[in-house]
Amino acid sequence: MIEEAFTALASRQVIMPEIMRIDISEFNGEVDIKSAYIPGYESFCVKLSTGFFDNPKKGLPTSNGMMILIDSETGEIRKIFVDQGLLTDLRTAAAGAVAAKHVSKENSVSAGIIGTGSQARYQLEALTIVRSLKNVRVWGRSLEKAEKFKEEMEEKLGLPVTVTATAEEVVRKSDIVVTTTPASEPIVQAEWLHLGLHITAMGSDAEHKQELSEEVLATADVVTCDSLLQSRRLGELRACNDNNIIENTIELGEITGKGVVARRNEEQITVTDLSGTGAQDTAIARYANQIIGG
Amino acid sequence: MIEEAFTALASRQVIMPEIMRIDISEFNGEVDIKSAYIPGYESFCVKLSTGFFDNPKKGLPTSNGMMILIDSETGEIRKIFVDQGLLTDLRTAAAGAVAAKHVSKENSVSAGIIGTGSQARYQLEALTIVRSLKNVRVWGRSLEKAEKFKEEMEEKLGLPVTVTATAEEVVRKSDIVVTTTPASEPIVQAEWLHLGLHITAMGSDAEHKQELSEEVLATADVVTCDSLLQSRRLGELRACNDNNIIENTIELGEITGKGVVARRNEEQITVTDLSGTGAQDTAIARYANQIIGG
Repeated sequence: MIEEAFTALASRQVIMPEIMRIDISEFNGEVDIKSAYIPGYESFCVKLSTGFFDNPKKGLPTSNGMMILIDSETGEIRKIFVDQGLLTDLRTAAAGAVAAKHVSKENSVSAGIIGTGSQARYQLEALTIVRSLKNVRVWGRSLEKAEKFKEEMEEKLGLPVTVTATAEEVVRKSDIVVTTTPASEPIVQAEWLHLGLHITAMGSDAEHKQELSEEVLATADVVTCDSLLQSRRLGELRACNDNNIIENTIELGEITGKGVVARRNEEQITVTDLSGTGAQDTAIARYANQIIGG
Repeated sequence: MIEEAFTALASRQVIMPEIMRIDISEFNGEVDIKSAYIPGYESFCVKLSTGFFDNPKKGLPTSNGMMILIDSETGEIRKIFVDQGLLTDLRTAAAGAVAAKHVSKENSVSAGIIGTGSQARYQLEALTIVRSLKNVRVWGRSLEKAEKFKEEMEEKLGLPVTVTATAEEVVRKSDIVVTTTPASEPIVQAEWLHLGLHITAMGSDAEHKQELSEEVLATADVVTCDSLLQSRRLGELRACNDNNIIENTIELGEITGKGVVARRNEEQITVTDLSGTGAQDTAIARYANQIIGG
């Protein structure tokens, strides 16, 4: 269903306006609004998501949000999901799975997760659907949170999880790395890359965020992303000044829909940048609506 | 409360992103999303409004919509009004009243309404709050709807309403004219203007709409608007190529907040263009929330 959204997106018929952002810098908060209409679908989604980064100090979750499912033919509001970001978490994880399925090497067995929040968990779970993982490494700024991640995920997935002392160790020892942080200074360095590695960077979705150093993109053999337009504005490609890299970047929809081949052998180094698209929101909201019989 | 919103808007501290629009041309529909954060307010609004212009053929209302009130400090969703556009109707009418109060001549007694839809009704009602009207003229493309307007408004307001054969007659014989149509070809012509006339054009809110001929703006002594940025993109100022007019256009907030004088005597011809701002939505949604004790 998320693959279908990427395919539609790459076919260029999708109407996906630029993200609307309201910055409430006074309270260290932001509201993002995304939408996409996919022709042929009987409904489409407008999503509102908030990030207020002082909330944890107040004992509140950072993110809130809702999805509004609108009838494509009449504009009537079909459903409102006040889901606190759950559907976004799911569709983001699903995009990570799509990236790993189509871009990482098939015999990947070790996963590395950078970050210890909810996306760290969802991304790892999604990876286990598309690759036969044998072990997991995790690194985060808080050792305590990393230990909690280990405990929870070992129980949930039955896989050994190692907490590492550095992000470098995660990258050097994993076949697939997923970065899930709101970092504004790059974490992953090009020297750490190794043959066969795949990295999915899903954290950066705003002008001030960046998880991969610019040299990572230059070193990778193949760069892919969910939306080139968005990735250049809000994602890892924002920091990239090499037109050659930008021109050769492949959108996931070209892989899922047009049979474009990203990885050509088990030695190539691949990167996928996910900034999160309104098309994915429309796909997951419609799916949720179908599941609950809407 | 709407005056306060205009004042805040003109003070330039308001964070009001560009309107997000999703055009579903396949079904002759559009979705607009507006928002504005006004510093100092404990909440702000994100509004979604739809216009699907084939709906009447299906026995459905053209417009749907909802307002989402968000906590300024935490991003939590405080209230969702699935109001079918009622709050928008009210805040738009209120803006018309603010314009008439500050820009039309005080001794205006005759009102002219062009258009016969729900805004035609709301705008007239709002006018009666700020001016002592004695009579009303109305014109619309459908004589039947104009007659219905006359019947309803005479009963509601106790004012004589005359249905005219032309828009010209409305303009020539009224002190205050409000245009409330989705016209894409200008209706009001400059030759019809007369001393002391005030026109509020509230219909145009998209790139293809226009109610006043370009010469109307050139002929008017004073041009005012709710938001200069929006009016130039979506309102009557879009068709204006005269930099002199644009530079001299006064935002309502400059009048309500900074004491700028728009009309200088009873003979001047004045025009106010309303395109509808997210700041007004935030004001009305907060007000509605207070009324219902939220």
